[in-house]
Amino acid sequence: MAERLSDITIQRAIGAMTGWSRKGDTITKSYTRPSFLDGIAFVQRIAMEAEAKDHHPDIDIRYTKIIVTLSTHSAGGITQLDLDLAGKIDAAAG
Amino acid sequence: MAERLSDITIQRAIGAMTGWSRKGDTITKSYTRPSFLDGIAFVQRIAMEAEAKDHHPDIDIRYTKIIVTLSTHSAGGITQLDLDLAGKIDAAAG
Repeated sequence: MAERLSDITIQRAIGAMTGWSRKGDTITKSYTRPSFLDGIAFVQRIAMEAEAKDHHPDIDIRYTKIIVTLSTHSAGGITQLDLDLAGKIDAAAG
Repeated sequence: MAERLSDITIQRAIGAMTGWSRKGDTITKSYTRPSFLDGIAFVQRIAMEAEAKDHHPDIDIRYTKIIVTLSTHSAGGITQLDLDLAGKIDAAAG
């Protein structure tokens, strides 16, 4: 099972990524897509990555804005699984 | 343009529907699907209805739970457009 990461590890990891920020026991990023349906297609790609890892982010759809929030509830915080999925989602954002 | 409906009209309309409740200037409903990917497929169907009406709900994905929130921002409240789309989304929920 994924273990909760230390504050410094999380800080370094998201410092090396673009647009992710920490909010308590979660990391979050907002993506803006060219259109509503582009956003929905992106949600579909996020879902495929999530299902492949059996790790499911919270996703908020606000017209062309897609807000993704990651946390590992079973570990009570942010784990490597969240960072890995964050990377996959960034790659899926193209 | 769709006009803002009166409180009594909104109350009657959502009273005739299942699971919808009013929250301020919005109407909202939470659906639970059998699996995460069933939820995503449902979001896809909601998106098709939304795009057809050029009216886009807020959608929150929480694992198998899909929360839909409708409002007509241009009218500053709830309009017939929201009630119509709510009906379409209920139909898409199957």
